[in-house]
Amino acid sequence: MSRTDSACLLISCSDQEGIVAALSTFIRRHDGNIASSAQHTTDPEGGQFFMRTEFAAPGLDERREAFEVAFREHVGEPFGMEWRISYRSTPPRVALFASRYDHCLLDLLWRQRRGELPCEIDLVVSNHEDLRAEVELLGIDYVHVPVSRETKADAEAQALRVLDGRFDLIVLARYMQILSPEFIEAAGTPIINIHHSFLPAFAGANPYERARERGVKIIGATAHYVTEELDAGPIIEQDIARVTHADDVEALTRTGADIERLVLARAVRWHLEDRVLVHVCRTVVFY
Amino acid sequence: MSRTDSACLLISCSDQEGIVAALSTFIRRHDGNIASSAQHTTDPEGGQFFMRTEFAAPGLDERREAFEVAFREHVGEPFGMEWRISYRSTPPRVALFASRYDHCLLDLLWRQRRGELPCEIDLVVSNHEDLRAEVELLGIDYVHVPVSRETKADAEAQALRVLDGRFDLIVLARYMQILSPEFIEAAGTPIINIHHSFLPAFAGANPYERARERGVKIIGATAHYVTEELDAGPIIEQDIARVTHADDVEALTRTGADIERLVLARAVRWHLEDRVLVHVCRTVVFY
Amino acid sequence: MSRTDSACLLISCSDQEGIVAALSTFIRRHDGNIASSAQHTTDPEGGQFFMRTEFAAPGLDERREAFEVAFREHVGEPFGMEWRISYRSTPPRVALFASRYDHCLLDLLWRQRRGELPCEIDLVVSNHEDLRAEVELLGIDYVHVPVSRETKADAEAQALRVLDGRFDLIVLARYMQILSPEFIEAAGTPIINIHHSFLPAFAGANPYERARERGVKIIGATAHYVTEELDAGPIIEQDIARVTHADDVEALTRTGADIERLVLARAVRWHLEDRVLVHVCRTVVFY
Amino acid sequence: MSRTDSACLLISCSDQEGIVAALSTFIRRHDGNIASSAQHTTDPEGGQFFMRTEFAAPGLDERREAFEVAFREHVGEPFGMEWRISYRSTPPRVALFASRYDHCLLDLLWRQRRGELPCEIDLVVSNHEDLRAEVELLGIDYVHVPVSRETKADAEAQALRVLDGRFDLIVLARYMQILSPEFIEAAGTPIINIHHSFLPAFAGANPYERARERGVKIIGATAHYVTEELDAGPIIEQDIARVTHADDVEALTRTGADIERLVLARAVRWHLEDRVLVHVCRTVVFY
Repeated sequence: MSRTDSACLLISCSDQEGIVAALSTFIRRHDGNIASSAQHTTDPEGGQFFMRTEFAAPGLDERREAFEVAFREHVGEPFGMEWRISYRSTPPRVALFASRYDHCLLDLLWRQRRGELPCEIDLVVSNHEDLRAEVELLGIDYVHVPVSRETKADAEAQALRVLDGRFDLIVLARYMQILSPEFIEAAGTPIINIHHSFLPAFAGANPYERARERGVKIIGATAHYVTEELDAGPIIEQDIARVTHADDVEALTRTGADIERLVLARAVRWHLEDRVLVHVCRTVVFY
Repeated sequence: MSRTDSACLLISCSDQEGIVAALSTFIRRHDGNIASSAQHTTDPEGGQFFMRTEFAAPGLDERREAFEVAFREHVGEPFGMEWRISYRSTPPRVALFASRYDHCLLDLLWRQRRGELPCEIDLVVSNHEDLRAEVELLGIDYVHVPVSRETKADAEAQALRVLDGRFDLIVLARYMQILSPEFIEAAGTPIINIHHSFLPAFAGANPYERARERGVKIIGATAHYVTEELDAGPIIEQDIARVTHADDVEALTRTGADIERLVLARAVRWHLEDRVLVHVCRTVVFY
Repeated sequence: MSRTDSACLLISCSDQEGIVAALSTFIRRHDGNIASSAQHTTDPEGGQFFMRTEFAAPGLDERREAFEVAFREHVGEPFGMEWRISYRSTPPRVALFASRYDHCLLDLLWRQRRGELPCEIDLVVSNHEDLRAEVELLGIDYVHVPVSRETKADAEAQALRVLDGRFDLIVLARYMQILSPEFIEAAGTPIINIHHSFLPAFAGANPYERARERGVKIIGATAHYVTEELDAGPIIEQDIARVTHADDVEALTRTGADIERLVLARAVRWHLEDRVLVHVCRTVVFY
Repeated sequence: MSRTDSACLLISCSDQEGIVAALSTFIRRHDGNIASSAQHTTDPEGGQFFMRTEFAAPGLDERREAFEVAFREHVGEPFGMEWRISYRSTPPRVALFASRYDHCLLDLLWRQRRGELPCEIDLVVSNHEDLRAEVELLGIDYVHVPVSRETKADAEAQALRVLDGRFDLIVLARYMQILSPEFIEAAGTPIINIHHSFLPAFAGANPYERARERGVKIIGATAHYVTEELDAGPIIEQDIARVTHADDVEALTRTGADIERLVLARAVRWHLEDRVLVHVCRTVVFY
């Protein structure tokens, strides 16, 4: 699908008769053609309804505002919807946060360059200097915001100034600092984190060490939206790898790194393609 | 969803504007509520469009014919659709074909008893007597139709008489005879087969022996619709397991048996839930 | 390998020079030929050493005692080993505990009949009557030992009398009662349990409900040895399946049942093939 | 294990009594301590025996030749073994061949830099200029050897001159030219290739296109040693990913790229760790 005049509409409302008919008729009347559509109902009786619709309409990019006003009046308000629309010709802007590990960061940057992630990445924020050279080689700003226990509030304020409200998504690519509720609130965008365990197992610190101690036969990684409660946000994607008694913490860390970067990349891509909706503390992902 | 007055509509037509609006409006006007809907387009420009819609409508079971006549007139014919509708209160009837291996057959029978497969299973046809006792214990007819090279045509004619046009689906649960094009044509129902390799690798006889010889590190199983060309029908589902140099043919066969029964059960369930559409030599599966 | 005159030797001791040479020379001098051997060291410097050796020796079954006396004197005691030897011509005896769910129980019984599990299964103990008919049809004793909060101690005493010290392994095939430390001690055999989550996630009750609430994208099952601490025993095997937002608790339970029976069957088979050694709270599994 | 004075011994011979005892006693007598050992027999009666032994011996690096002479005399020749020994303090040298795709090449280079691949990589040969900048940034020689149908023999001769017999392993990281039997013979080292399908399915050109046409539900990648017969060499590792009807060739290619780089990296690492032995047209891999 050509990116011009294409859009993705995500809606959520209480389930009721006639939603699909109203929405598809609206798009039809505005010269749109539905390229792809998916829906989910938490419960056919009194549940919550979710729908993702990709469509194209000639000249849509020139009449975005009129389209949205009409949609609000004829569909959004009558059905009491929460909704948002993304236009394919305006790629979202993404900021990455990292620390010392390079695997997730480099993988995201590589995927964006080869066109796998429909977004612009203009900024890497890190509490260490280690990855500056690799990032700057790609022409991306690298801002060092050191964090210590005492300077955390200041550091977060500095990071917010750097972000400057310019971004649509923040991705924590193995960023090893816990963000305060105040930062999360002030950032005002979704934040995706990668945790190196199959949550809810091994939430918190040192999951590979604890996986080794417990003697699990599978390890995993979890990409989730960041909320105030550590490692408890809505899960977007998880994956695992088999391990054995012969794998020490170093081997788990090496095997896990491959899962982390795959899981994070999938989660970020799905988010950027408007495939993820949050419902209470869970996600609906339209693959 | 209550099974009464519920139905599943599967459609396929060339992609064109307004299909979703027309279909959802039609269901809405016939007092139906869409419980679930999924669609696929092979190509947004001039491709083929597929859609699966689960819906409920009060009293639908009493007005099936009127509903179908109206749908044909107002939606089916205007859009040039192929379509079929299944009513949840009328479970499909399934006949199983088996030979000597019990794993796929017993697994399907056990899943049907525990309510995992929305169908009735009334008949097992086998070219051997081995599994008669286990099948008859469950109160299911077991008909022995021996097959030899010389008697194959007669045996197939006998099997057709036993089937007597009463079934909606035939499942080959490791049935070790190749069905003739004439039988496939005369049976007049979809036929699902389980092949013990990840097709197209190791089509034909003795896949585990050949997997061992080739030294593959994964083995698999494939459930597909039977067509005239052996092991070349549209694939519904596949899965695999890792193996090593230490696995001899006996070990591959044992590991493979677990994959076979899982893959076949998934394929049969998806078919029975009207999730599978055939397009040329491939399937669209709405999970 | 013919089962007669074949054996499997499992050893564990602190790592030190010369273990493999001593053990292999000993077997060689007693006319044995090693068919398979695997070893593991937790740490090359001061770690614990584990080894599994399958071997055959002509007439071994007639000279078991002499072999063991000599091994203890020449290898076991000099190296301070814990060791045990299993003779293939004496299959272990297994008792199964179940409640109302049939999937794990029937799967184990079916695998034993088809020769996948090298053991004898003579007894099923259950706190319910539901599965009696299916078990007795196979000629296996089914003993109903009802358990209530008040009668738990009596019920466990009754179960111990039924077991009568005749068994080498107890398998809890979705047995829904928690065994007391006293029972575990008195039973005197390894006990394998299947838990319907990927431990340590969702230890305790209702893991599928909690998995649904947390919104995980993978569910799993864990086979482990039973210890006094609930769901904290050494893990033998785990596996997982992908799920989505569309899977309700019923779907998770159905998908999970397939993983449970596969994971439990693998764990039981590996235990019966003497592939599992316990080290502190973990297992070494020689696949 | 410290790399100094550590080595890995790989042997293969017809199965016979006393091999393990002889080998472990030999190492013991030369002051060696076995850190890890694994073995495999294709058939306990008259099969082929394979064994991998990691060991350390004080001063081994200074007495390599004496050790090897003694081993040949006391173990290698008496048992008719093929054997080779690798010393951990001498990392193997690896040359990479690539074309235009960067994913496998960059992934191997990144893994080598972070210490996952015990080898030196000094050279990238490519029939295109595309990847020169990224490779040279890492300080690695990049030699462009263009190939056309007419110049193939000359190009291979040029590549051989560049290699100059300095390498222990050649890895084809999505190198899109078929090597002639003469080149394979003259190179004189193992050559590992990554093929973008689960062989033997879709051997030859355009596997993703053919996977899409056949409608498979899983795609895969295969790492194998290169032999004269295209895509038929001994398989070292394979892995797969699930796909659906919605995945077009572009999506299959993207999903497949992640499998390709994981599978190739595992195969190369296992080869470099001396875990892979070839037996006729298959591999024994000691994980």
